[in-house]
Amino acid sequence: MKNVAIFGAGRIGRIHAGNLAALSGVTLKYVSDPVADAAGSLARQLGAQVASADQVFADSAVDAVVIASSTDTHSDLLSRAAAAGKHIFCEKPIDLSLARVRSCVQAVQQAGVACMIGFQRRFDPTFNEARSRLDRGEIGNPEMLIVTSRDPGAPPVDYIKASGGIFRDMLIHDFDVFRWILCADGDTAQWLSATGSVLTDPAIGAAGDLDCTAVTIRTAKGRLCQINTTRRSAYGYDQRFELMGSHGMLQCGNHRPTEVAQWDAGGIHGDNPENFFLQRYAAAYRLEMAHFFDCLQSGSPFRTTVADGLAAQELADAASESAKSGRPVNW
Amino acid sequence: MKNVAIFGAGRIGRIHAGNLAALSGVTLKYVSDPVADAAGSLARQLGAQVASADQVFADSAVDAVVIASSTDTHSDLLSRAAAAGKHIFCEKPIDLSLARVRSCVQAVQQAGVACMIGFQRRFDPTFNEARSRLDRGEIGNPEMLIVTSRDPGAPPVDYIKASGGIFRDMLIHDFDVFRWILCADGDTAQWLSATGSVLTDPAIGAAGDLDCTAVTIRTAKGRLCQINTTRRSAYGYDQRFELMGSHGMLQCGNHRPTEVAQWDAGGIHGDNPENFFLQRYAAAYRLEMAHFFDCLQSGSPFRTTVADGLAAQELADAASESAKSGRPVNW
Amino acid sequence: MKNVAIFGAGRIGRIHAGNLAALSGVTLKYVSDPVADAAGSLARQLGAQVASADQVFADSAVDAVVIASSTDTHSDLLSRAAAAGKHIFCEKPIDLSLARVRSCVQAVQQAGVACMIGFQRRFDPTFNEARSRLDRGEIGNPEMLIVTSRDPGAPPVDYIKASGGIFRDMLIHDFDVFRWILCADGDTAQWLSATGSVLTDPAIGAAGDLDCTAVTIRTAKGRLCQINTTRRSAYGYDQRFELMGSHGMLQCGNHRPTEVAQWDAGGIHGDNPENFFLQRYAAAYRLEMAHFFDCLQSGSPFRTTVADGLAAQELADAASESAKSGRPVNW
Amino acid sequence: MKNVAIFGAGRIGRIHAGNLAALSGVTLKYVSDPVADAAGSLARQLGAQVASADQVFADSAVDAVVIASSTDTHSDLLSRAAAAGKHIFCEKPIDLSLARVRSCVQAVQQAGVACMIGFQRRFDPTFNEARSRLDRGEIGNPEMLIVTSRDPGAPPVDYIKASGGIFRDMLIHDFDVFRWILCADGDTAQWLSATGSVLTDPAIGAAGDLDCTAVTIRTAKGRLCQINTTRRSAYGYDQRFELMGSHGMLQCGNHRPTEVAQWDAGGIHGDNPENFFLQRYAAAYRLEMAHFFDCLQSGSPFRTTVADGLAAQELADAASESAKSGRPVNW
Repeated sequence: MKNVAIFGAGRIGRIHAGNLAALSGVTLKYVSDPVADAAGSLARQLGAQVASADQVFADSAVDAVVIASSTDTHSDLLSRAAAAGKHIFCEKPIDLSLARVRSCVQAVQQAGVACMIGFQRRFDPTFNEARSRLDRGEIGNPEMLIVTSRDPGAPPVDYIKASGGIFRDMLIHDFDVFRWILCADGDTAQWLSATGSVLTDPAIGAAGDLDCTAVTIRTAKGRLCQINTTRRSAYGYDQRFELMGSHGMLQCGNHRPTEVAQWDAGGIHGDNPENFFLQRYAAAYRLEMAHFFDCLQSGSPFRTTVADGLAAQELADAASESAKSGRPVNW
Repeated sequence: MKNVAIFGAGRIGRIHAGNLAALSGVTLKYVSDPVADAAGSLARQLGAQVASADQVFADSAVDAVVIASSTDTHSDLLSRAAAAGKHIFCEKPIDLSLARVRSCVQAVQQAGVACMIGFQRRFDPTFNEARSRLDRGEIGNPEMLIVTSRDPGAPPVDYIKASGGIFRDMLIHDFDVFRWILCADGDTAQWLSATGSVLTDPAIGAAGDLDCTAVTIRTAKGRLCQINTTRRSAYGYDQRFELMGSHGMLQCGNHRPTEVAQWDAGGIHGDNPENFFLQRYAAAYRLEMAHFFDCLQSGSPFRTTVADGLAAQELADAASESAKSGRPVNW
Repeated sequence: MKNVAIFGAGRIGRIHAGNLAALSGVTLKYVSDPVADAAGSLARQLGAQVASADQVFADSAVDAVVIASSTDTHSDLLSRAAAAGKHIFCEKPIDLSLARVRSCVQAVQQAGVACMIGFQRRFDPTFNEARSRLDRGEIGNPEMLIVTSRDPGAPPVDYIKASGGIFRDMLIHDFDVFRWILCADGDTAQWLSATGSVLTDPAIGAAGDLDCTAVTIRTAKGRLCQINTTRRSAYGYDQRFELMGSHGMLQCGNHRPTEVAQWDAGGIHGDNPENFFLQRYAAAYRLEMAHFFDCLQSGSPFRTTVADGLAAQELADAASESAKSGRPVNW
Repeated sequence: MKNVAIFGAGRIGRIHAGNLAALSGVTLKYVSDPVADAAGSLARQLGAQVASADQVFADSAVDAVVIASSTDTHSDLLSRAAAAGKHIFCEKPIDLSLARVRSCVQAVQQAGVACMIGFQRRFDPTFNEARSRLDRGEIGNPEMLIVTSRDPGAPPVDYIKASGGIFRDMLIHDFDVFRWILCADGDTAQWLSATGSVLTDPAIGAAGDLDCTAVTIRTAKGRLCQINTTRRSAYGYDQRFELMGSHGMLQCGNHRPTEVAQWDAGGIHGDNPENFFLQRYAAAYRLEMAHFFDCLQSGSPFRTTVADGLAAQELADAASESAKSGRPVNW
């Protein structure tokens, strides 16, 4: 039986807490959140206790922590958890500063604890099936990856100001998909060119950020990746990718709430994609939490490690730099 | 807080037990099954006790029972539950004998308990969305319903022998869909013609049953319904319907495990439908159990009543008779 | 070089005339139509001469005739063409009276001319591909055929009054599809049950006809066919079929004008099917005319013979009778 | 009546000749090709005469010429046709040298003849419908364009050596699509970054060319375009684009030979896209030739002018330069 504490009782914290509480062999012991009401209500709902970070780290019965608090608290909690010998599940991004991310990686390695980063797309049934087929050789050698990643609407400008910019906040997932899919055999980014615009809301530009981006990466093996994103998609959340290989192509589509098609005088109408990430990735969130505890139990390596968190962040930094300078980054 | 007992710890019983145990405000108190091991393991897993039917009915703390045992035990358990004043969720079919079904209906009415029949398709997100759009008038008046209902493979011949035949065992769901969709405004079947064949396995014919059927129903308002079924679909479980209305058509497709399309030299390949009813109707089973307890709590009527169970069975009987005689049945 | 005369310069006549005039080795010599203007304009456009039926049959240079005039003239023109030793392409139906159809069959056989009936669906690229795959054994033995056949709107009531009824006028194509697909190995209809309603326009009922029908056919080998039709489909012309076989299913969809999908706040919207038969079957009309002259040239048998015309008409008659009596027809 | 001469009796020349010969009001008078057999056979088939370029330009009865000969002859024929006062339809590219293209543009302007360039994608029913919807405002302001352009296989290396490289030979169409769709309101490219690889055939690399490319363009208004191409797609010819706008997205899919879906134990299988450009763009080639003569007749401007040919070529040159230098091009 694993005893777990969760940091963060907000939107994503509640998802993770509910998923881990439903796992057999796992007990949610503590909920920790500076907002006392949020912590209390989540703890009550799941039969856990409210605790401070100090209490959590001091309790030797706690085996693992889930860090789902605000981004600026991640690196501190992660380092303290490592020091306390707790295994760690940490939401992306680890930190907006690459230096702090690197010291987190070091802390984890020195402590010898297991640390998984929450790149939930790797657990999405559709995306994961594509990766499995790639591994089985069904499309031969991977050559080109086209990633479409569009949010239904931008977060508040205050959030954007503190987000580290669209490449670190939003495309970090896409950079992880690039690495997971196109670099599965150890290939690495060699050349990256990013650009972007402010097309959906001038306030985003005034905050120093972009809302639409176009990134291209070429790997050491010559593979090509193109990522297109926007903060505001009129038809909702759009999460697709296409992987072109030497023997075929894998096209990963959106999931939809229902399979109803309405045929009428105006045409044939199908559902929009699932509303946003909580709906689209509901299964993925469940499966990644199960994976975390399965690996803790079996000692198998995680599918997404702290090193993956670092590597995605390095690409995000490079893209930010490229978009600013108008010139590519080479490795 | 509702205390519940479940009869039946087999495949569908475990589904229902898991779903109801996850509902807040609901406690699974007893599991009852003649197979002691099955009852014991399910009870242990969900923190319930094993009990005999006598114990269940004698315990005044039990508010409701879920009958998911073998079909031949349904009518007896249902009648006893009604007599004991327990609310009832009963899997379809209530009984293979129409006479016994009618006496169950009477028992429920006399006892004044609530009784819901497990026609889970009414809770399928896709089918239910179609019904909602029909209710909202999006396709005008309903005119024709085409139901495709194909199983991936036939059950064992011994099961078939005791099943009451394909119309009562398999099409009962399709007859309920017909009533739910095409008779939503009180319309009724007026003419029914059924035929069928043995095309997939001669053993089914030797057992006196059919494995492929074609049913047509015309309602009092002149609406037309065609149902096609087979026990053996090479590509798996196929559950679709199309509802033609005066202003448009609603086409309900299958659900699929993933949204991966593979494009290669052989064409463009998508997933087959979800494997079988446990997968396709996973959400429906969850939603119908929630609906059962929501209605018990609020006093709202069930979406599928014991009268619906009777009405579907009457259509199944008529279809069996029509297929045997080669002549239609008129009401 | 084949010299050809066409009877009928109306809508379908102009299609056939244009298609045959574009074939190399074929010369359109005469256009014949009681409406002098129609004949004249079509003849001018394609470099042909206007002629009476007498002139056509008297001209020994005419090798073949295409009969695309009004239905009530078909059997007379067909018999005269046979007597004159001309090869014949005749639009369906040959005649509304089975007796006259049979005497046409006899006339053709006695004269030893070749006679093809215009069941153009057999030349539709999608439907024809399905038949080819069936022949190649890709889905094993055929078991069930579901035909969806819906017109965008009813013809004028005056047309309906003279049409012989919906089964002879509209479903004749569907009965031919049934025979072509499900009876490709010589199987035959053994039991047929038809019903129908007047749901779209009371004037159709007042004219003694139906506007929605549901037909079921069981063959000697136990195969099942269901056909659903309506005269008025709100979303346009709908021509699909599904063929279930022991090893798989072939689903034939509609053709669409464009492959644009519009994603917006209201969902994902695709094109309706091609507008009506002239658009959907444009390729089929071209291919059937080429087939007619290819077979004349090579001596190969036609894909659709006068015997097919007779057989489809017999099924239409049986369906009319069944729908009237409310009882099935047995063979 | 317009009298026309065609230069080039190869693959694309025969397509254009067949299409223009079928237009009413247009006469194909001459076929000119250095390969006498090709010219002769095409001329015979369409009732035209074989002629040298000198004869064509000397015949004052010739109103227009169609230049479908090898690329290295285009600019010379175009200049001579302009000088002779003939209207011109010229296949893309005008010439591999931008300087020669510019002098062709000048020659056309000075002569006052009409000159249309064969960017047939602008006449594809699907792509053209997307442009029409954009013009009607159905998706609001255009923001991002994702172009997928994949050939089924590379041409012979000798062809590639003389082709000017993949950007000038293959992507010229994609650059025209970018301008036609994303710059419809006069917007222009401001920043272009291109990269590429040799992934499908080392011989292409040895010839100094690339076989996979990724291009990004940002316009003066901040719109973003990404183009991905490959010379070798295992599943065939793939021609799609997605246009993201402020109010919705237009997704243009491939056309397929048939609408058959086969459902079997291996999944649900649909047709690959139309085989290659002659099939996919058959309608487009027909429509562009009709457009050419319609505009000559009515005096309306062409949808694709010689200025469009120049502008696409400038983008192709910029992309070649960017891919070589590894740095973006700015305007």
